[in-house]
This record gives sequence, C-alpha cells and structure tokens, in this order.
Amino acid sequence: MKLNDTIVALATPSGAGAIAIIRVSGPEAISIVSPLFTAKSGKKLEDQPSHTLHLGNIIDAERIIDEVLVSVFRAPKSYTGEETIEISCHGSPYIQQEIIQLMIRKGCRSAEAGEFTLRAFLNGKMDLSQAEAVADLISSENQASHQMAMQQMRGGFSNEIQRLRQELLDFASLIELELDFAEEDVEFANRDQFKELIARIQQVLKRLIDSFATGNVLKNGIPVAIVGEPNVGKSTLLNSLLNEERAIVSEIAGTTRDTIEDEMAIGGVGFRFIDTAGIRETQDVVESIGIKRTFEKISQAQVVVFLLNAEKFTELSSEFKVEIEKIINKFPQKPILIIANKTDKIEETERERLITELNAISGKNERSQVLLLSAKTGAGVEELKDKLLNFVNTGELRNNNTIVTNSRHYNALLQALEEINKVQDGLNANLSGDLLAIDIRQALHHFGEITGEITNDDLLGNIFANFCIGK
Amino acid sequence: MKLNDTIVALATPSGAGAIAIIRVSGPEAISIVSPLFTAKSGKKLEDQPSHTLHLGNIIDAERIIDEVLVSVFRAPKSYTGEETIEISCHGSPYIQQEIIQLMIRKGCRSAEAGEFTLRAFLNGKMDLSQAEAVADLISSENQASHQMAMQQMRGGFSNEIQRLRQELLDFASLIELELDFAEEDVEFANRDQFKELIARIQQVLKRLIDSFATGNVLKNGIPVAIVGEPNVGKSTLLNSLLNEERAIVSEIAGTTRDTIEDEMAIGGVGFRFIDTAGIRETQDVVESIGIKRTFEKISQAQVVVFLLNAEKFTELSSEFKVEIEKIINKFPQKPILIIANKTDKIEETERERLITELNAISGKNERSQVLLLSAKTGAGVEELKDKLLNFVNTGELRNNNTIVTNSRHYNALLQALEEINKVQDGLNANLSGDLLAIDIRQALHHFGEITGEITNDDLLGNIFANFCIGK
Repeated sequence: MKLNDTIVALATPSGAGAIAIIRVSGPEAISIVSPLFTAKSGKKLEDQPSHTLHLGNIIDAERIIDEVLVSVFRAPKSYTGEETIEISCHGSPYIQQEIIQLMIRKGCRSAEAGEFTLRAFLNGKMDLSQAEAVADLISSENQASHQMAMQQMRGGFSNEIQRLRQELLDFASLIELELDFAEEDVEFANRDQFKELIARIQQVLKRLIDSFATGNVLKNGIPVAIVGEPNVGKSTLLNSLLNEERAIVSEIAGTTRDTIEDEMAIGGVGFRFIDTAGIRETQDVVESIGIKRTFEKISQAQVVVFLLNAEKFTELSSEFKVEIEKIINKFPQKPILIIANKTDKIEETERERLITELNAISGKNERSQVLLLSAKTGAGVEELKDKLLNFVNTGELRNNNTIVTNSRHYNALLQALEEINKVQDGLNANLSGDLLAIDIRQALHHFGEITGEITNDDLLGNIFANFCIGK
Repeated sequence: MKLNDTIVALATPSGAGAIAIIRVSGPEAISIVSPLFTAKSGKKLEDQPSHTLHLGNIIDAERIIDEVLVSVFRAPKSYTGEETIEISCHGSPYIQQEIIQLMIRKGCRSAEAGEFTLRAFLNGKMDLSQAEAVADLISSENQASHQMAMQQMRGGFSNEIQRLRQELLDFASLIELELDFAEEDVEFANRDQFKELIARIQQVLKRLIDSFATGNVLKNGIPVAIVGEPNVGKSTLLNSLLNEERAIVSEIAGTTRDTIEDEMAIGGVGFRFIDTAGIRETQDVVESIGIKRTFEKISQAQVVVFLLNAEKFTELSSEFKVEIEKIINKFPQKPILIIANKTDKIEETERERLITELNAISGKNERSQVLLLSAKTGAGVEELKDKLLNFVNTGELRNNNTIVTNSRHYNALLQALEEINKVQDGLNANLSGDLLAIDIRQALHHFGEITGEITNDDLLGNIFANFCIGK
C-alpha cells in the first residue's frame, strides 16, 4: 500500500481558539498551497527551504481568506516523510472550513483518521508499534500513561522486539540453509546456542506478557469500586482526593455507564472510581438487580473501597459486618479497603473500638485493610492515597522497564510465545530442521505483526481508525 | 503601559487533538525555552534565526515530556513584536499542561486573555481597531462577519480614520499657532478650506455611523422572529433552509435564552431564527405572559416571519387575520413575511383564494409580503431565502465599503460627529481660534480612541478581557 495523493485536515481540536493548524501532506502539498499563498516578503513558497516559516495571506481568487503563518517541510524531513505544509490560521471554525474547502477544490483529499501517521509508517518514519503509541500519547491523561506511551513511541518496545526477531531470523536462515544441504546432514545452526536463544526469548516474552497486567490498568486507569450507602460521603471523599491533587475530574465521554465514574490522577497514576449501589440485603426485585450490578463492578475492579459511616457503625455494626464478609467471601483475592468515614464526629474511645472491630473483620482476608478517615477534615486522605498507590505495581514504571499496554501487542506476544514453546519442544525432541523452521517462521510472523513488518490493509485500517483526524 | 515579562499560554482550543500549540512571548522567551529543548540536529535554539522550525524534545531534568516542533520568531518579526517561541506538541491535555507548567516553573507567567494581541498593540504591530478585529475574526461564523472583520484587521477602517484625523490635526496645529500670534490677528488656517474639510469629515462620519446599523446585525446575525402555532411546521421550515445551505445549526452557547434559537448562514449572511410562543388571544395569565414575550421578541427582531398552516386557513381565517393585523398595528415599520406553509396539502383553487386573502391583509403594511411554501417538498424555500436576503442591506458589503461593527467605535464616531458639528457651528459663527481649538481637540480625542492613540488601562482591560487566552 502506497498513498500517492495529497491530503488535508484540521490538526488542532475543532472549535474556536486563538490558532488552528491545517495540515497538507503529499507530493502536491507545496505546489497546491503555493499559488494560494501570498507571502508578505514577496517570496514564492515553492522556492523555500524545509523547516522555514512564512507570514502571508491565503487568497481564493481575489478574496483574502486569512492572514496565516505557513510552515514548509520538504520530503523526507517531515512527519509523514512527504512534502508537507502546515497552515497556522486564526482559529475561527468558519476560516478553518474555508481554507480546507479551498484546498480540496484545488486537488487535496480530506484525510482519513490517522492518515498522516499511517503515511509516516508506510514511508518508514516509524514502525507500527510507534505509530500506535502516537495515539496513546495523545490520549494520555497522567504521568503513568504518558511515560508508557512515550517509551513506546521512542521505540523502546520495538527495539527489544526487533533485536529478538533479528537473532531468531539469523538462526532461521541457518536452519533453512541446512534444508538446502539436507542430503549432506550438516548443522549450520548450533543447537546449544539456539536452545540458549530460545530460552532467552521465552524469558523476555514472559516478562513483556506479564507487564500487560500492569500496563493495561495503568493505561486505562485503575478501576476502584466504591461500595457504600448514598449518604456515607462518597462524593466528599472523591472531592477531597481531587483537591489534594488539583487534578481535573473528567466525565468519561463516549463510554456507556450506568453509574457515576470519576477519573483522577494520584501520584501520577490514573484511577477510575466507580460508584456502586451497595449490597444491602433486600427483598426488593429492583434493588436486588442493583446488588447484582454492584457485584459485577466489584469483579471488574482492581480494588474495592468499602465506605461506612463511623457515626452509624455502633447501631448497625452487625449489618456492616455481614456486608463486608459477603464481599470477602465472594472475592477472596480482591484487595478490600474498609474505610470508616466521618470519624471527626465520634469520640476517641469509639474510634478505638471501631478500629478493633473492623480489624477483626478485615483479618478474615489477608488482602484487606482498615482505614479511619474524615473526608471533611481531610484526616486520613494522604494515607488513603498511599494505600491506593500500594495496590498498583509501579515498580516496572519506576525502573523504566518496557511495559506492554496494547492488547494487540499482548495477543501477538502470547502467540509468539506459543510458537517459541513449540520450537523449544522440537529442539528437545531433536526434530528435523524443516519441522523446526515452520514454528520459527510462525514466531517471526507474530513478532513482525507488532512492529509492522507483517501487516495487511484490514489490520492497518483497524489501527488507524482509532486515531483522530489530522494526526 | 509596557509589559516586560515573558508569558505562556495554550493557543489552540483546549481538549485533545492531533496537535496543540503553546505560545511563549517576551524578552526571555528564547532563553527560557532553549535549555528545555534538545534539537534532533544538535543545534542550540538560541542560535537559530527567525522563522525557522526545529524538531526535538522538551525535557524537564531527565524526563522527556514530548517530541515537539519549535518555531522561532525573533523580535520584532513576530506577532507580538517580542521574542516568541511556538511549541507544537502532541495534543494531549496532559502534555499541554506539563509543558505550560514547566515554562511557568522556569520563569514564564500565564498569559491573560488577549495578552499576546495586547502586546502586539502596545509594540505598534497593529492599532487598537485592528486588534479588536482579531477577536471578531476568530468568532466570525459566516462570510459577512468574516469579510467585515478581515477588512478591519487589514486596517481599512483605521486608515480612513487616521487620514481624517491627520488632516484635522494639521488644521488644529495651524489654529493653535494663531493663538501664539493672537496680538497680530493673523489667520494661518484658511477658514474656507477648513469648512470644506469639516464638511468632508461630517460626510464620512455619517456614512460610517449609518453603516453600523448594517454592521451590527451582520456581525451578530439578523434576528428573525418566527410567530406561529407549535405544529405549523417551524422546525421543518428551519431544517429545509438548513439542508439547502448545508450549514451547521449551532446552539448559541453561553447566552441566556428562553426560546429555541437557530443560527444559520444564508447567502453568506448569518440569520438568527427566534421561535416565539405566538400571540393568540387568551384569558390565561400564563399564556398572556407568553404573548408579552412574543411582542418583545418581535420588537427586537429585524424581520418577522408569520407562519400559518394553509390547511387550517379556511376554518380559522378570521383568527389569523386578527393576529397578523395586531402585529402590523403594533409594529408598523417592521417587515413582516406572511408565509402559508403546507401548501402541498391544498388544492390549486384554494391556493389562489389563500393568496388573495393574505395579500389583502398584507396590503395594510407596505413592508409586509406574502409567500406560499411547503417546507416538506421544499417549494418556496428558495424564494424565502431571496426575500430574507432582500431585507438585509448588503450593498455596502458587496462594494467592500468600510462597515462599522463595533459599538465602541460607533459611540466614538457619534461623539466625534457631535464635536465636529460644534466646530462647524463655531466656524459659521466666526468664533475665535481658541474656542474652535477646544472642540477640535475633543474630536481628535474621539478619533484617537478608535485607533488607540488615546487609551487607558481600563479601556484596554475591557477590550482584551473579551479575547480568548492564547491570542
């Protein structure tokens, strides 16, 4: 696949702003824009060198559409690797559309979603996993997801895969060479060295595959289910976490959800707090549907926060215990944080009795913990943040290890490992080279899928459809 | 007022997009960004000439925040006239904030709304009316408002005012010179030439002042009140107008409104269609409040569209007549377009009778017209558009005349005219030079207010507060 036409798109977010950028890329980019642009300096755009900026007017026939700043990028020294023009115009949606429509009338085509990055990939400016990281980078909302996307975009992951693939390819070539000399029964590929390589590849693959558990939640935000009565102080708790971090509560656009979901970054890591209806015992059909949903959300969550009202604990103590035990029994592996809120309203002696009782319940599950808190005064909020962060394995992040965040890569790695395991079995069983070669080729294929050496239009279509227009 | 610090702001619309632009301007712009930027080429940013582009990384200590493209503009060859850096980064709100926060830590200040353009004005890159046109240009939504803003930004209006001001200033100097030689009773300023100039200035001012009636409605959209029963086909009518124009219906954000208001461009001119509750006679208190509101909206509208259902005309004929007559009586000067909708549902003979009856009512007001239409089939829609456009005086727009769109300019022009009239009266009464000079200085003052020769911090504060941040 090679794209030979010239494309145009708005590259900045839609809507009014001070500046908008319109990007034009393709063989005709400079020759299409040049006659539509009159530089203040009188210079002709087509004569200008790469990486220069020019002030002037975009003119349609006699009519001045806007005073703009034009950037010139000459192939291959551009994002796409093609001739590229970026027009920085006044950020009126009307002006943006007038300029884009003018470009289309003069021979440009409206760019598809992600088409600039697709072209960058097709022109060898980046490999496929790097291209995918561009979209991740744009949607990164906190330090963790940003760091992972940045590492992937800068080729950390690809380099690791490429290196293994190259070593495996070298061995594959030797083994396939053996096939040509099959009658002479030679071994070009040293079997011991090959076993050592396979073991090393297995080790790397396993580490990368394991990292996906971390990467996936870090990328999408750690889901935390909050279980508690409506008036127990859930929103005050979320607000006090928010105020501390001065982060932005964003409603997650475009996702289907039947509960309130708040996103925020704590210590650079994204958390998604999912409000649930609670699990109080009931005869009511509607409410019991609510309880079913709560359990579903708990099962999807990484951590459960059980929030109770310290003031009401004494009178309802047994009810709380039943509820907490129910969660512990149903999800023995799930970390549960039992939080008594509104502890500013109770006496010191009550606090002590409360913590003793809660510890007794908590003790039934080694992954559960107890915390006294006052969302109102902020007491305990710092401790809550520490505890939440402790539930996340950020070691790999801190050590700047490669973390897999993309489920497509994860699946390719799983399949590659499966093939590598077959190769290992084959080696141990002293299988003949021609049989080994088949499995090796399969493993190479899955490596190639990640970096894009092996690809097809459907796959590219799926990947770039998730990009925004203009990137 | 001179601003000596270095400011930073996001210049593209907020939210996620492919690209975001962060603008840094001020004496330290290049020296602040340079150490935070590592160019791929290895070149140092501070050594780069104006109007060049550089690919590299923004780095905070050891941490790479983003791979960016940096534009260098050297003073005075920049928008603000100051040293300026524009950073084109990946459009993630997280990355935008990280870069802006980094710049602030390194010595930048968050820019106020419109501060880049304020600096451009203070540094003599544009006059005040041109600076105001920048905001108009960004908010322009159709060809008419775009053309007026563009003309003003390119200095068409200022040039006209400046020229008159200079001529007046020359005469003022001569007259003031006479005062120094008062004892010798000389006349340096030829009174006949001066009268001729004053007459010319009056003429120009009157034309500019008159143009505001057109300019103001063209800028804000021509208000059209639609009067008609709920099921008479108002939304179908608006949709059929819209489909023809393929324009975007935008809900007007941030404005208080108690009725549905649709904006669309017809023939490059913006119209605002304001739905009203109708004016059917009633005893009901709530409904009579509705009628009062309808009359208010009619009084604010440029044109009234009275929409009636052709099918029901026969049975309710007298009611319709009463209503239309009521509007005509109350607003004798207001153009009324009486439209019979759903004419596809009635017979040809009925259509003829309908038009006769409506013409009879319409005849009572020379500014009212009748139109048969079917919003469903589209019959009559083209004619409706022509009629609406005919209500707008677009002659000045077509002839590319200077049109005043800004109420601040309008008020200054009115005040200038008042002073010029006093000067004329003084000349006719052979007033002495010292008395003439006072009125001339006042007129000059009001001219200067428009272009910004005369200004103060409060005025500038008010003007630039309406800009977006980053412009």
